[in-house]
Amino acid sequence: MRIVNKLLQAGLRRSVQNDYARNENALQRMIEYYSRFSPTPLSLRQFLDFAQKSGDEKRSFKWLRQELPTRLANMVKEMNRLPDGLQAMPSTQLVTSWYQQSLEEVIDFDQDNANCRDLVEFNKVLEGIIQRHRNVVETMAHGIMEWNELQKHPEDGQDKIQYFLDRFYTSRIGIRILINQHILLFGDSPVRQPDFYGTIDPKCDVPMVVEDAYNGAKFLCEQYYLGAPALDIDVHNQIEESSEVNIIYVPSHLHHICFELFKNSMRATMERYPHACDVPPVQVRVTKGKSDLGIKISDAGGGASRSVTTRWFEYLYSTAPRPPRSEDARITPLAGYGYGLPISRLYARYLGGDLELQSMEGHGTDAYVYLKSLSTAAVETVPVFNSTTNEQYRRPHLTGDWVVPANQKLKQFRNPFNGH
Amino acid sequence: MRIVNKLLQAGLRRSVQNDYARNENALQRMIEYYSRFSPTPLSLRQFLDFAQKSGDEKRSFKWLRQELPTRLANMVKEMNRLPDGLQAMPSTQLVTSWYQQSLEEVIDFDQDNANCRDLVEFNKVLEGIIQRHRNVVETMAHGIMEWNELQKHPEDGQDKIQYFLDRFYTSRIGIRILINQHILLFGDSPVRQPDFYGTIDPKCDVPMVVEDAYNGAKFLCEQYYLGAPALDIDVHNQIEESSEVNIIYVPSHLHHICFELFKNSMRATMERYPHACDVPPVQVRVTKGKSDLGIKISDAGGGASRSVTTRWFEYLYSTAPRPPRSEDARITPLAGYGYGLPISRLYARYLGGDLELQSMEGHGTDAYVYLKSLSTAAVETVPVFNSTTNEQYRRPHLTGDWVVPANQKLKQFRNPFNGH
Repeated sequence: MRIVNKLLQAGLRRSVQNDYARNENALQRMIEYYSRFSPTPLSLRQFLDFAQKSGDEKRSFKWLRQELPTRLANMVKEMNRLPDGLQAMPSTQLVTSWYQQSLEEVIDFDQDNANCRDLVEFNKVLEGIIQRHRNVVETMAHGIMEWNELQKHPEDGQDKIQYFLDRFYTSRIGIRILINQHILLFGDSPVRQPDFYGTIDPKCDVPMVVEDAYNGAKFLCEQYYLGAPALDIDVHNQIEESSEVNIIYVPSHLHHICFELFKNSMRATMERYPHACDVPPVQVRVTKGKSDLGIKISDAGGGASRSVTTRWFEYLYSTAPRPPRSEDARITPLAGYGYGLPISRLYARYLGGDLELQSMEGHGTDAYVYLKSLSTAAVETVPVFNSTTNEQYRRPHLTGDWVVPANQKLKQFRNPFNGH
Repeated sequence: MRIVNKLLQAGLRRSVQNDYARNENALQRMIEYYSRFSPTPLSLRQFLDFAQKSGDEKRSFKWLRQELPTRLANMVKEMNRLPDGLQAMPSTQLVTSWYQQSLEEVIDFDQDNANCRDLVEFNKVLEGIIQRHRNVVETMAHGIMEWNELQKHPEDGQDKIQYFLDRFYTSRIGIRILINQHILLFGDSPVRQPDFYGTIDPKCDVPMVVEDAYNGAKFLCEQYYLGAPALDIDVHNQIEESSEVNIIYVPSHLHHICFELFKNSMRATMERYPHACDVPPVQVRVTKGKSDLGIKISDAGGGASRSVTTRWFEYLYSTAPRPPRSEDARITPLAGYGYGLPISRLYARYLGGDLELQSMEGHGTDAYVYLKSLSTAAVETVPVFNSTTNEQYRRPHLTGDWVVPANQKLKQFRNPFNGH
């Protein structure tokens, strides 16, 4: 148990093993070693096939034993490219330590000689990782917010922070799916019935998930506004000539995305019609084509101007007030960081889809969620640390290559007009 | 007439003047000289104020005498950064020669001492420039298409070509507006009535322009398909509490954009419902908010997949067959290059707006046109040649920083499913 030997390729193995016993430099060498591998993205079809057909725990263990350290190490390497000041923030160091500890715990297992007790222990380690990393989003958000407030020109480095967070949080979504699939298939209460394989539903009823998300948002909306817009849903299935729309998907991801969009649409609608008897409904259109499944969520909540909507996917932009500073980075709440939309987009993009918003100022907003219709095309989108990544963090802040009048910058004000 | 002296700043003036008489290096020095200036973008408000209040021909002449060479020279410099092979194409050389000749003709005027005859002559030169440059879009398109067909890996340089053409064609839109404003205000038949100032309509009736564009497209559509979708238009004015929507704008630009979008929507709809008695209408929503004017054009023409829609704004992508090669680059037709959408987007962006498309595969497409509600915010977007521009052409083709399975690239096929 928890042995380092036999874990690495022959050449590196012995020296790393010795180092490991002696000092913590070994960890850095492990990170170097695993970051040289590229993550291997899987399609939903591959996840499902494994769960349905050859669901062998030892095979899953061996795969994770290589893939998890690879993905963790790629991310640790990328975190090392963040500005020094940001790396030094206590929250960032906490997150980094979680990644390092999880990597260490996984590589402690012997990939080639795991017995039944090792497999049970591996499950516990995976559950521990899920627990340890559960506040990664908030903690990283907190670190970046605090660091940002210390910057003289916080706008300058924003594109790099956006780049990093999109990649960092996407990587996290993938790591969680890998771990959850293993835990749910081989843990204490395995989920392997015809209607669910781990986190994956082979017949995910899209309109039903949409309605569930709507009901969840409606519940919150009614508590606060004492009312909520109705749901008006319309389904087109080009492929199966059916009024149903099913795909192989991770329903929790889809729910997360739709719940976020409904919350925004309801808030905008109720703010615009606070005393109306007939609040305009939120309209949803679900379409399934050969390649794409589309979900369009339209509200008549007044929309927002382009100067606002172009910032809706920025991590450092939120119309809501910032959460109070906290000495304990672990308990900072997600609400108020304004991460709902960017993270929802990452969920969509993670499996080859996307999320886009179009607003008509003075009328309302349309949100478009795109997913892949085919599970073979729904392939994980996973960041890799390579020379291009390095280049992205290194390149200087370029001046504009279009002429902008001096007063144009003033237009990037924070407009509280819309609650998105 | 056509004198070089007194045109340039004291230091450079004499040497350039002497050179000019002796050899054509002078032209290159003029290009160097003027490319060091940044273009000065104007707002629609400034264009209109000048036309309404202080419309003095000599002032307009002096402004153009500096601004036109600046914009032309910035573009010539940028063309010099294109790949050598592309620069050597006869079409590209033809376009470059037009830019050089026009620049030469403008700087031949003495900025400080123009008499009445000079002003008349200047008008003729401007009309000549409009004529000379009328096929710039097609000719440049032809050169790029021919060059592209000679490339082993045409995909590699596509981002740079896209970058160049977006800037080149935007610059051309601006130059044409500058020239047309002068010709229309001070030419043989000046357009300076309450309802039109040059190309600008101070009360541009947006729904009316939309309907005109619809009728133009309907005429073409009926000729080909013996029918056309109806127009269903809906207007919201948040600002003036009115059923009308007027802005200060260039109606010909707006017409160009909407005509293109209606053509696409009608084609998609008629292809999907070739024998239907009740073809679904094209739905238009016009909204005016504090900052943005929005026009949403929605069809039920079946939409297209993301693998197709993500390429709709690429110059080198068209689902239509390529026009036949021609010995005479001047007569190549625009139709067939598939430039309709990218150029329409540039018209919208030129004055601070945008054009975006969202498609629901299996159902239809929504096009969103955004314009600035306020003429003070509708400022020209003009490319400038600087170190960032240089950097864009120089930077190497980077490998991806996300893992993509090997077979994913095959998905970028050209899908003839949708006629956009």
